[in-house]
Amino acid sequence: MAEAASSIISRIDALARREGLDLSAILVGSAARKTWLAGDYDLDIFLAVKDKTDLPKALELAKLAAPVHQESYAEHPYIQARISGFDVDLVPCCRLESALCLKSAVDRTPFHTRYVSERIAGLEDDVLLLKQFMKGIGVYGSELRTGGFSGYLSELLILKYRSFRETLEAAGSWHPGVVIDLESHSSQSHDDPLVVVDPVDPKRNVAAALTLEKMLQLAAAARCFLDSPSLEFFFPEEPEILTREEIEEAMKSRRSCFILIKFKAPEVVEDVLFPQLRKAEESVKALLERNDFRVIRSDVDASKSIAMMLFELEVWELPEVTALMGPPVWEKEHLSKFLSSHQDRFFGPYIKEGRAVIEARRKHTHARTLLEKEMRNLALGKHIRAEVRKGCEICSGKEILKSGDLDRRKLLTRYLRSSLKIC
Amino acid sequence: MAEAASSIISRIDALARREGLDLSAILVGSAARKTWLAGDYDLDIFLAVKDKTDLPKALELAKLAAPVHQESYAEHPYIQARISGFDVDLVPCCRLESALCLKSAVDRTPFHTRYVSERIAGLEDDVLLLKQFMKGIGVYGSELRTGGFSGYLSELLILKYRSFRETLEAAGSWHPGVVIDLESHSSQSHDDPLVVVDPVDPKRNVAAALTLEKMLQLAAAARCFLDSPSLEFFFPEEPEILTREEIEEAMKSRRSCFILIKFKAPEVVEDVLFPQLRKAEESVKALLERNDFRVIRSDVDASKSIAMMLFELEVWELPEVTALMGPPVWEKEHLSKFLSSHQDRFFGPYIKEGRAVIEARRKHTHARTLLEKEMRNLALGKHIRAEVRKGCEICSGKEILKSGDLDRRKLLTRYLRSSLKIC
Repeated sequence: MAEAASSIISRIDALARREGLDLSAILVGSAARKTWLAGDYDLDIFLAVKDKTDLPKALELAKLAAPVHQESYAEHPYIQARISGFDVDLVPCCRLESALCLKSAVDRTPFHTRYVSERIAGLEDDVLLLKQFMKGIGVYGSELRTGGFSGYLSELLILKYRSFRETLEAAGSWHPGVVIDLESHSSQSHDDPLVVVDPVDPKRNVAAALTLEKMLQLAAAARCFLDSPSLEFFFPEEPEILTREEIEEAMKSRRSCFILIKFKAPEVVEDVLFPQLRKAEESVKALLERNDFRVIRSDVDASKSIAMMLFELEVWELPEVTALMGPPVWEKEHLSKFLSSHQDRFFGPYIKEGRAVIEARRKHTHARTLLEKEMRNLALGKHIRAEVRKGCEICSGKEILKSGDLDRRKLLTRYLRSSLKIC
Repeated sequence: MAEAASSIISRIDALARREGLDLSAILVGSAARKTWLAGDYDLDIFLAVKDKTDLPKALELAKLAAPVHQESYAEHPYIQARISGFDVDLVPCCRLESALCLKSAVDRTPFHTRYVSERIAGLEDDVLLLKQFMKGIGVYGSELRTGGFSGYLSELLILKYRSFRETLEAAGSWHPGVVIDLESHSSQSHDDPLVVVDPVDPKRNVAAALTLEKMLQLAAAARCFLDSPSLEFFFPEEPEILTREEIEEAMKSRRSCFILIKFKAPEVVEDVLFPQLRKAEESVKALLERNDFRVIRSDVDASKSIAMMLFELEVWELPEVTALMGPPVWEKEHLSKFLSSHQDRFFGPYIKEGRAVIEARRKHTHARTLLEKEMRNLALGKHIRAEVRKGCEICSGKEILKSGDLDRRKLLTRYLRSSLKIC
């Protein structure tokens, strides 16, 4: 890894000299800090320029250095390439003297690397244990898709608690509102469940992207592990993908209703796609519940070009009649508007808790037809909206498995079988 | 009426003299105040004694005066009898100089009669109009069964607003929190929707038994009437009792689920029975909703010896699976108790909003079987509980009408067809 990194860095430096660009290539991330996990082949190399206006030139140079590449976009554009078996990110950024005047998240990374490198000696194995533990229980990775712990965050936890074991012991008692401030220099309060003040930036919470769920999952798994340690935590067995028959059997015994919404995944990176998918999931759930249906649980997935949202319903069919709550009886104008807009009714008006109520015909008596009619009118992220408007497939019950599609079975296996370490 | 009243009163006075009891019989209520409605044949006669200890003697004397009678019980025992075509209440009470040192609600009545009689001259017709209007729209009567306006309350409203029309105009703008204090002597605040301070008792709200619903029903009907007056308000046509076929048709078009619970009515007066029935109705509703079923509306009725509770359900059947919310993940002991008490599960645990969740088998998947199993364990008023434990019939859908019972059709007609004047 060191060889690969230094060869890429010299190639970039040479190109920069040739182009007359004041640029230095820096290895960052876990590779630089000697805390990378076996099986990871990620190299993060930053192309630091003196001035913001040189960023486009740095991007062009990255493209020259890795002729076969893909251009991606986080806060700034960057290059992803496969070089000598490694997944290499080449990220243009600004060179700054101190992290305190940072312009973007990317520019902060070299300071993180320096902070950890100067302090981590002797604790590398504990970092590796913690990272692999987090990976095994499914809370490692700070991308929006995961909402888990970043590499930097796990390194800071080891710097704080001084060992893998002591980190788990501390984490086992976590509750929302825990604050860790290594440099005791916090200059801003945060509303996040876990606050780990960035040692190189007193205003920033390193754990801002961590969800309450993933934080508590680490807490619960830490307790399980300390209670009865096992390799399983680090290297869990993948659950076997269920067969169509097994899935049908599980659906039947739950006696609920499954609805799958499927559409072409927009061509954006996962960090853009997944937040939009989660937002769409919430919008669909809200639509269903606004119409008196009830959702037990839901999940989303995307693979290659297909995006899927899965909903399990507790109530999916409703009577024709529904009670519509109107305004308080003493709001005369609202009341007469309400009454005149519901001329066709089963019963009423009558008064309940001070409000006029009318029993009228329900707009949507089936969850599936509601979705078929209203999916395209939903508030969705712009990339997803475009795809959904082009067309989406909605199916329910056994139909979901009709095509025998492996992706669907994978999603349903995770939905029906995945189990967390919680005690 | 005057003749009947004075003949009864002389008979009682004669008996009292014979028995050597210091007692005076007084005509009270609307008959005494010349504000009784045509069609009413109620006479309220109070048997006032000087001392509380003479109350039992007064009751015995009332029994002598009306050999054919029924003994009833409000705050004190009293006698109900039918004399010369009138329904006569003979009510023992204490004679007191002022209402301010009242001992019971009954003892206050003569002061009400005196207060109104001294002021109502010239306004009797307005009182009658208001009472008949209230009767026609279904808000007259302060018994607990009705929760509406008492005769005394309607008289005070006329004394306040000085005419039927002005009372309706004022009532049309009522909202919760209206206070009327004829003597400006209120000495206590009340939390009721309408507060009418008793002119003879500054601590008492004459409208304490009035429900928000009945108060607003008068407000809404008053607006309708002023907007387009008609005799219909005073003498509404009774809706014709629906046939079995019509009821089945209505149920079918609503596509909901009706459940009827029927049991022997305990032998208590309506003012005891109906509050217990309403309480039972609420207990059943809470039981259903605690088990994830949903009630659209419900009603109760009692006729002769049968009590009935009717529920219309929006959700009456549920899947096998249910998501059980456990304690917050950081409450370690609660968590481990929760997990160990749900060993048999479909899925989980997982974490949602900081809590552990398990998907397990639901206890009751059908509303009707839930009621069959749990009715006798419900918190019910003591008289109803005794009857329900002896046995109750639960039926749903078309079964409700199987016996073709007129009482059931009456209840269902009211449920499906009654309409209130609201605008």
